Amino acid sequence: MNAQPVTMPSADDIRAAAERIRTAVRRTPVMRLAAGELDAPIPITLKLEFLQHTGSFKVRGASNALALLRAADGVAPSGVCCASGGNHGAAVAWAAREAGLPATVFVPDFSPRSKTDIIESLGARLRRVEGFYADALAASQDHARHAGAFHIDAYDDPRTVAGQGTLGLELAEQVPEGQPVVVGCGGGGLYAGVALALAGRNRVIAVEPSSAPSLTAALEAGEPVDVEVGGIAVDSLGARQAGRIATAVGLSLGVKTLTVADEDIAAARALLWQRLRIAAEPGGTTALASLLTHSERFPDGATVVISGANASPSQQVG
Amino acid sequence: MNAQPVTMPSADDIRAAAERIRTAVRRTPVMRLAAGELDAPIPITLKLEFLQHTGSFKVRGASNALALLRAADGVAPSGVCCASGGNHGAAVAWAAREAGLPATVFVPDFSPRSKTDIIESLGARLRRVEGFYADALAASQDHARHAGAFHIDAYDDPRTVAGQGTLGLELAEQVPEGQPVVVGCGGGGLYAGVALALAGRNRVIAVEPSSAPSLTAALEAGEPVDVEVGGIAVDSLGARQAGRIATAVGLSLGVKTLTVADEDIAAARALLWQRLRIAAEPGGTTALASLLTHSERFPDGATVVISGANASPSQQVG
Repeated sequence: MNAQPVTMPSADDIRAAAERIRTAVRRTPVMRLAAGELDAPIPITLKLEFLQHTGSFKVRGASNALALLRAADGVAPSGVCCASGGNHGAAVAWAAREAGLPATVFVPDFSPRSKTDIIESLGARLRRVEGFYADALAASQDHARHAGAFHIDAYDDPRTVAGQGTLGLELAEQVPEGQPVVVGCGGGGLYAGVALALAGRNRVIAVEPSSAPSLTAALEAGEPVDVEVGGIAVDSLGARQAGRIATAVGLSLGVKTLTVADEDIAAARALLWQRLRIAAEPGGTTALASLLTHSERFPDGATVVISGANASPSQQVG
Repeated sequence: MNAQPVTMPSADDIRAAAERIRTAVRRTPVMRLAAGELDAPIPITLKLEFLQHTGSFKVRGASNALALLRAADGVAPSGVCCASGGNHGAAVAWAAREAGLPATVFVPDFSPRSKTDIIESLGARLRRVEGFYADALAASQDHARHAGAFHIDAYDDPRTVAGQGTLGLELAEQVPEGQPVVVGCGGGGLYAGVALALAGRNRVIAVEPSSAPSLTAALEAGEPVDVEVGGIAVDSLGARQAGRIATAVGLSLGVKTLTVADEDIAAARALLWQRLRIAAEPGGTTALASLLTHSERFPDGATVVISGANASPSQQVG
């Protein structure tokens, strides 16, 4: 592992984040479904995080990181920047607009228009970078150095992870102790934050597309390693390397990830539209797909986070 | 008014309906939005009834009516029938399938494919009728008489209204006493049920498209009268005549309706997609449109029912 020590947010950091962003972000509701409603023989509780500003949990981390950066250092006139498959970029654009700051968002060139349109409509400058998320990340870090902007990391910064963890604190008030919580995982910011927030209360399971298994590979290797990424959810869960924070959290808790096939993600997405009129993107239904295909692992049911609704609605009906 | 007396469901009827359909229908959550989030200067609570089976509250009434019909008389082999712009038809098809009974649904010929597809996918026989809802209603009543099927009325039957009222009982546990509740109105079944369920606790306001103002006209005339119907929400709120029950409820409570222009309905629909990724149909955003354009009437905020999500998602982005 990288010699630089990994800083995980503490429980206090997550509680402080919740207080800090309380009026900025939405408290999203949960919806309980009886066994059988999604064709799996277990009760499933949906955390409706697609109702969050910009359609995903990412505004939690972006808002917390931006607030801490401003409090610590003031902000350079060139504002903030980030790299993103799209959703974190929309979140940073949104948080920057709320704060009255300029934002520059670097996206891989395959980022879909459904996401880049949102980023631009929120007033951020969009920069397309050839390659994958990792290439956009290098461009954002370079921009931060040269232009004096603050880079808000999508998942490997304790300020971001603490913000995502506020979703876990909400769940602590919404779902029973002991019920497993299943989340989609790209770089692992949501997984890490929620697992830390719910440690000792609820087991948190990270689900990756088998086409982008970065945390799975990291937990096997004992450190983040490069994986091939692609597939249906690459624009939201396509981190080539898992975060060091998520890896450390997973290793310290001794957990394993689950992976799920692209066709199961597509099927879960179609089912969510058909049965609940929820228009989630593939990354937003990856966790649900795993729950539906591995329901025998959750005999008493589970809670699943539905986050990420930035696909074209016309692509919705599966 | 028709010489036949109007039978309103009692508070006990609504409580009994809630118990009767408790495991059949979903309890839908609410979502609180701060002032400004939808550009109106008031806090707004959304009742997320689009998450209900078949995308609308209609399954509440259909399930209750069907259960009561079966309990009272047994069911003729030819099953059940109804008339509907689409959503009640989907609900009756769903309730009949749950009960293992055949269903025949009469729709006006303009009922959109987004609705008729659902009805047929639920196994019901679809019958297109030239004209409007009223013409489909005559056809369903005729079918009931000749084929011995039970006609489940969309809004002018106390069993249906009691079922819709169960949404009001949920709201009594979800929103503060005294907060106004705003609902869309076609024939008035939802309005009547919720107003009866919340009588003395929350004022309930019925909103109609100005292109289909049947309850507005009925309350002015003191009885249901024919109105011209058309416009953006005609497939869900296009009753040519308000229900006798809704009219009696409105007259007894001394309330007035609000009406809203088609363009405001379309704008509310686009806003709901843009800000919350909720894909509602025009009839599902009529109440919200009124709240946004008449926010000065609700200085302390309001709760609004979002119900009806059976439009093509590709028509979503406004």
